[in-house]
Amino acid sequence: MRGRHAIATANGCGIDSLNDFERMSSFTLEPLGFIHSAIRGREDAPRQGSEGAPDAWLEIEPKFADALLGIEVGHELIVITWMHGAARDVLQNHPRGDESRPLTGVFYTRSPARPNPLGLHPVTVREIDGTRVKIGPIEAFDGTPVVDIKSASTRADG
Amino acid sequence: MRGRHAIATANGCGIDSLNDFERMSSFTLEPLGFIHSAIRGREDAPRQGSEGAPDAWLEIEPKFADALLGIEVGHELIVITWMHGAARDVLQNHPRGDESRPLTGVFYTRSPARPNPLGLHPVTVREIDGTRVKIGPIEAFDGTPVVDIKSASTRADG
Repeated sequence: MRGRHAIATANGCGIDSLNDFERMSSFTLEPLGFIHSAIRGREDAPRQGSEGAPDAWLEIEPKFADALLGIEVGHELIVITWMHGAARDVLQNHPRGDESRPLTGVFYTRSPARPNPLGLHPVTVREIDGTRVKIGPIEAFDGTPVVDIKSASTRADG
Repeated sequence: MRGRHAIATANGCGIDSLNDFERMSSFTLEPLGFIHSAIRGREDAPRQGSEGAPDAWLEIEPKFADALLGIEVGHELIVITWMHGAARDVLQNHPRGDESRPLTGVFYTRSPARPNPLGLHPVTVREIDGTRVKIGPIEAFDGTPVVDIKSASTRADG
């Protein structure tokens, strides 16, 4: 990865190495909050997309609370997660780990393994308690960072 | 992130600043490719979601070419962009800039302005030429970095 390489070669201290990191055109995501789910690991995860997935609490960082204005129970959202446990160096795999299925580029799968491990979750708002929003169904491990939240409707363009 | 931490440790010198960086738990996206579009700026952009949006070429970085395996003309994909021109410090706005509409948290809009300016684009593959993929319709400025590509079907889970 270029960003990492920049830090290794810059070999400088503090600010300089981070500036190099930015100049190499990588982009930095900040967690907006975290998922609290009964899914603790792969063995708890449903096998097929969100079918059978549980609801989960999304706990938003207080500094982003104002960005929740207007969200109500029943609304449909798209939550984008950072699948922090996923491999980033995998470019092809067998869909669902089924070797009878042809090797497929990760850009044509929904596999968590991919260069930038972003997860896409269409959910419904079930409950709101301050900066805690219960959403579901969502197949995401407990502790997964959330990096974006959008209206599911493209009519909501700003 | 483990990779960066390992490099920082090996480097010695950069370790403190990188540890600070990690403590903030931010995540780094690498561009997978870039959009080449006739939309050069806001004045060219359609006003309503992807309605009236043009097709565009997505040029994938050669190092990620293998991740395209299996993508064919007619396939439906979800492209995630990094809206590099967007303001990141806006938490509320009037949808579509229309002040007659109530102030809304950006997590309930599709506004480009948001803490992590990720754009979500459902598209159809029109044409494939090596690592260049013509997709559309897509409302994205020329030069926009692409940070993830997924099958639009959740049946494609890996």
